[in-house]
Amino acid sequence: MADNPLRRTVGQLSRLPGIGQRTATRLAYWLLAQPDDVAQEIGEALVNLHRTAVHCGTCHDIAATSPCARCTDPHRDATVVCVVERPQDIGAIERTGAFHGQYHVLGGALAPLDGVGPEQLHVRSLLQRLAATGIEEVLVATDPDVEGDATALYLARMIRPSGVKVTRLAHGVSVGTELEYADKSSVSRALENRREI
Amino acid sequence: MADNPLRRTVGQLSRLPGIGQRTATRLAYWLLAQPDDVAQEIGEALVNLHRTAVHCGTCHDIAATSPCARCTDPHRDATVVCVVERPQDIGAIERTGAFHGQYHVLGGALAPLDGVGPEQLHVRSLLQRLAATGIEEVLVATDPDVEGDATALYLARMIRPSGVKVTRLAHGVSVGTELEYADKSSVSRALENRREI
Repeated sequence: MADNPLRRTVGQLSRLPGIGQRTATRLAYWLLAQPDDVAQEIGEALVNLHRTAVHCGTCHDIAATSPCARCTDPHRDATVVCVVERPQDIGAIERTGAFHGQYHVLGGALAPLDGVGPEQLHVRSLLQRLAATGIEEVLVATDPDVEGDATALYLARMIRPSGVKVTRLAHGVSVGTELEYADKSSVSRALENRREI
Repeated sequence: MADNPLRRTVGQLSRLPGIGQRTATRLAYWLLAQPDDVAQEIGEALVNLHRTAVHCGTCHDIAATSPCARCTDPHRDATVVCVVERPQDIGAIERTGAFHGQYHVLGGALAPLDGVGPEQLHVRSLLQRLAATGIEEVLVATDPDVEGDATALYLARMIRPSGVKVTRLAHGVSVGTELEYADKSSVSRALENRREI
């Protein structure tokens, strides 16, 4: 029965994290009930994923070309670069529609105890971008945790001497959160970062 | 950005039912972090799904060949055939390891109000199997709901005159369920079907 195409599909789908045998079975039967091209198009995207995905040599995002379409987009503001830990963080910023600059993916955050120093991150290429191009502001959007904070401070120390402005994403109480239920760290950040109105 | 291979993969994966944008993104990044062949093997199974999946002309299960490997397996008991509503129901019976007969997939259950009559189900081919082969027992494993019950009664009425024994899966309190928390219908079935010990 190992050559049963349905069981093979179930077996393959259940390799995905968070997809168990039961969900995989449900998905496989759903696919079988759809027109042929649904399973085919999804399958082709997966087959071609590694072959077509490249790391942009400039921003280190995953893209179709290097440099990527965003790095060469003349409509984006090349004077501001937003530094993120992971490629997926770019989506969170882009969805706001409030940022129109460039990006730089570090590939993680400083974690000396785990052996992650500046050499393991795309820090040197960031400094090279700053030296080579007319970047005026670096917006550090690392996570608001110990590693992200350390990385932001490290980058600020490295970049500030060159005269480039270093800013950081504001942290505080989430919009829509009632103060009563906000987590302690967010409230404490919100107090620290309070602004005059 | 539509030609971004990652975004294309996210877009394709999020076509699957129950897989939203967020889960699709998580899966796509997970696949990118794996060796190339993981995404490729999963993708190929999907690409080939419709091309390789056929309906067995005997039992109507989804299989690689028609008749399927199970229908032609000489080690299975050809005198008992278990009638199920859907191909996926076969897995539930097979997992018990307690049934070694053949199967017959109806393709649903009688639901006259939805326009599903015996002609819409694989009933005629079941009767033809009974007439042509040495089947001695038909075990009806339709769902324990109104449609499944009606289908079981209908099949029993159609088959019994030919002298073939018609049985039905026992319904009662699930193993492991405390009586206090068992649903009313299951307890009521368990009372109806009570056995002398």
